[in-house]
This record gives sequence, C-alpha cells and structure tokens, in this order.
Amino acid sequence: MEVINYLLGYKNLKIYQNTDMFNFSLDSVLLPGFIKINKNTKKILDIGTGNAPIPLILSTKTNAQIIGIEIQKEVYDLAQKTIKLNNLEKQITIMNGDINELKATFPINSFDIITCNPPFFKVSENSNLNKNDYKTIARHEVKLNIDQICMTAKTLLKNGGIIGLVHRPERLTDIIKTMRNYNLEPKKIQFVHPRPDENANIVLIESVLNGKPGVKILPPLISHQANGEYTDQIKKYFE
Amino acid sequence: MEVINYLLGYKNLKIYQNTDMFNFSLDSVLLPGFIKINKNTKKILDIGTGNAPIPLILSTKTNAQIIGIEIQKEVYDLAQKTIKLNNLEKQITIMNGDINELKATFPINSFDIITCNPPFFKVSENSNLNKNDYKTIARHEVKLNIDQICMTAKTLLKNGGIIGLVHRPERLTDIIKTMRNYNLEPKKIQFVHPRPDENANIVLIESVLNGKPGVKILPPLISHQANGEYTDQIKKYFE
Repeated sequence: MEVINYLLGYKNLKIYQNTDMFNFSLDSVLLPGFIKINKNTKKILDIGTGNAPIPLILSTKTNAQIIGIEIQKEVYDLAQKTIKLNNLEKQITIMNGDINELKATFPINSFDIITCNPPFFKVSENSNLNKNDYKTIARHEVKLNIDQICMTAKTLLKNGGIIGLVHRPERLTDIIKTMRNYNLEPKKIQFVHPRPDENANIVLIESVLNGKPGVKILPPLISHQANGEYTDQIKKYFE
Repeated sequence: MEVINYLLGYKNLKIYQNTDMFNFSLDSVLLPGFIKINKNTKKILDIGTGNAPIPLILSTKTNAQIIGIEIQKEVYDLAQKTIKLNNLEKQITIMNGDINELKATFPINSFDIITCNPPFFKVSENSNLNKNDYKTIARHEVKLNIDQICMTAKTLLKNGGIIGLVHRPERLTDIIKTMRNYNLEPKKIQFVHPRPDENANIVLIESVLNGKPGVKILPPLISHQANGEYTDQIKKYFE
C-alpha cells in the first residue's frame, strides 16, 4: 500500500512510502545529522537512496546539490514523487540505476560528500534469498556491498571529501578494513545503543579521502527510554 | 622513588612502583575484567607487563599459569619483587626480554589468552624522544608496536585463543586492520568515556585467532562522575 507520511519531526517534509516494501528508519535520520556539512559543501551523492529520506533531510541543512541513486525502479518512482511533492526538484535529483553507472555519469573527484545507508547483511552462498524481492535488495548485499561503496567513494570524492555511512556494528571490522583499502580514513565514529546497558545496534562512520590516521569515538547515543520512547538525545535529530 | 602500593581495590595485592618511572593505570585494571577467562584457560601471556598489574589481577580470577614479559630491566625487577611480595611465584613467571624472544621460548599455538597494555603512541621519524627513557618505552612504540603484538599472537595463540588489548581509541583503525591481517578477528569491543558527553579515551578489544567475522560493541563504560570520582560501573572492577 502506498502512503504519504510526514518525515517524523521534519514537519514540512512529506515522504511517499510503500508499506509492502519497507519504511525508512532511524538510520536515515541519524546520518544527515552526524556528517559534517559546511558552506563549502556543493555536491552530495546519496547511494542507495531508497525513497530519498537522506536527501530530504539534507535539504534542510544545506543548499548543496544533492543526487540520489536508487537501483529499484518502483522505489525510485516513490523517491521521484516524494521530491516533487516537496517541491525540491531544483535541489535534489534522483537517478534510477546501478552504482557502477555513476562513474560514467559524473566526473571523478567531483563530490564533497557521499552518504549511504546500505544493505546491512552479508550474502553467503547458502543464503536462501529471493534476490528480486524489494526487501532483500534493500537489506542484503545483493546489488550493493561495502567494497563497491568504498571503491565508488574513492573515485568520486574530491581529495579531502567525506563519506558518511550508517551500518550495523557487527560489520565494523569489514567497514574499517575496506575503507582503509580505499584510502578512506575513518575520522569519527558514533555508536547507538538502544539502552545504556545494551550492545550497540547502529554505527555511524565518517571517513575522509586521503585523511590522516586517527579516529575519534564520539559520546554514545542512547536511543530509547525505559518506556520505549526515544530519548531526548534522539529527539533532537527530529528538530 | 620506589614505593609499595595496594593494588587499588584488590585489598590483598600489593605492587611495587617506582614513581620516577610510571604508575599503573585504569587500563590495567579494566583489561583483566574485560576478557573472557574460563575453566579451560590454562596459559596466559601478558606482553609488556610493566610492574605486573595485569598478571596480579588475573591471578584473582583464574588458576591458569601466567607469564609476563617486560623488556626494561629495572621495571622487570619491580615486577619480580611484586610477585614475591604477594607469594605468587608458583602461578606467575616474569621474563626480562624482548617480544621477539618469545617464539624461541614457547611452543607455537601454546597460549589460551594473550593480554597487552602496549605503548599507545606512534613514533614518527620526527619524534623528538629519548628512546632509552623508561616512560618513552612504556608509552611510545619504540620497542613494541601493534604489528609485532599481533604477529606474536598469531604464532603463540592456540586456534580459537584470544588476545585482549587495551589501547587508545584514536588507534582503532590501525588495530582492527592489523588484527585482521593476522587472522585475529575482533569479537568484542568496549569504549570507555570519561563522562557521558565526552569522546572515548580507552578502548578494550578482544579478538579470536581464526574467529568468524562479526563484532559486538558492548555497552559504553563511563569512568567518572561529575565530582571526579569513579562511577559505580568502574568501581566494580576493583572488587
């Protein structure tokens, strides 16, 4: 079922969702608030943009050009409708395509920032997955994996440009190792724990192309109160 | 000046320290409480043992044989005196030597656990260091670096054996990448923040030789209360 929702606390932004596919999550809200955007940020790429929550939220924080790419036609259609609904066609462009097409479309070293909320789960040979299913493609590394994201970032980011990734902490080692392989040096990492005494379930990472070694671990974010509501720390991201 | 101190909350343990060299720190207390010790743990190696705080605390948690190695003769002497003072000669052996001598001394794949609270700081060619100074050797990677530690762990750990490391979060990328290079798979990471709203200043990592990929980020430890005292979370490590 296709529905229009308000983008949580962003009261002016509405987003098309298809409840048969998936809904956007806390991940997409945290990432735009985590990465460093400044006045020199001119061009941002969001890989695997889904129904475009990250471009939408970014548009409230910057005047930079934002390009989102989404491989699934039906999801891309939702993103397109969402951008029109919010009258953001001038700032946000959504492409329907594969990450591998980006290099042919954009000049190398042309982006200041790349964001990505990628599929989280590894696909093993034994995985019993319907590889054409919307949710499978959004959640499993069928069409997009960490290596492809980092390779693309190395090519498309300006020297000193940043990549901001939201992922599952379980994959931290894979992410860090792959980033280093592509000269994307982690500079800032933040973990989100559902409650103060629970393991982290979200990790946010900002890396700089050709940055100097040395990473900061930011104060932990605790997402939920005992009553199940978001904490004040998290509610700030919706303001 | 050489002094005998009680090992913080471990009321029966005394430790020789030389105030001209350095004092043991929170790091050495957290690591033995962080790593997984069980009934099958028979043999533990502590690399860069200093005046032996980690072996001492481990002795309260296990009956395993504990070997500590310390390169600095004067620090080694303190460790020896400390072991005797606590009547732990049967369980703890301190060696005076270099990490490279370990391979000649012990059979390969013979340790269940390796612990290490290594020097934290990189040495660059421009570093203006007195490389014979006690503190320099304890704090800077003059005689012992992450690569050497991981290479040694790969050789001396049993298959499935663990390495527990305490380090500075700034070096997380170096540590994770180096561990993977030597098939030491990070399984458990915990960050310590001085206060809830401050960046982490200590990281604890447990990796398993030939372990499966996938790491857990444990709940954050907050070390200090607003009044400067340790938090209850930290006080538990001293019980």
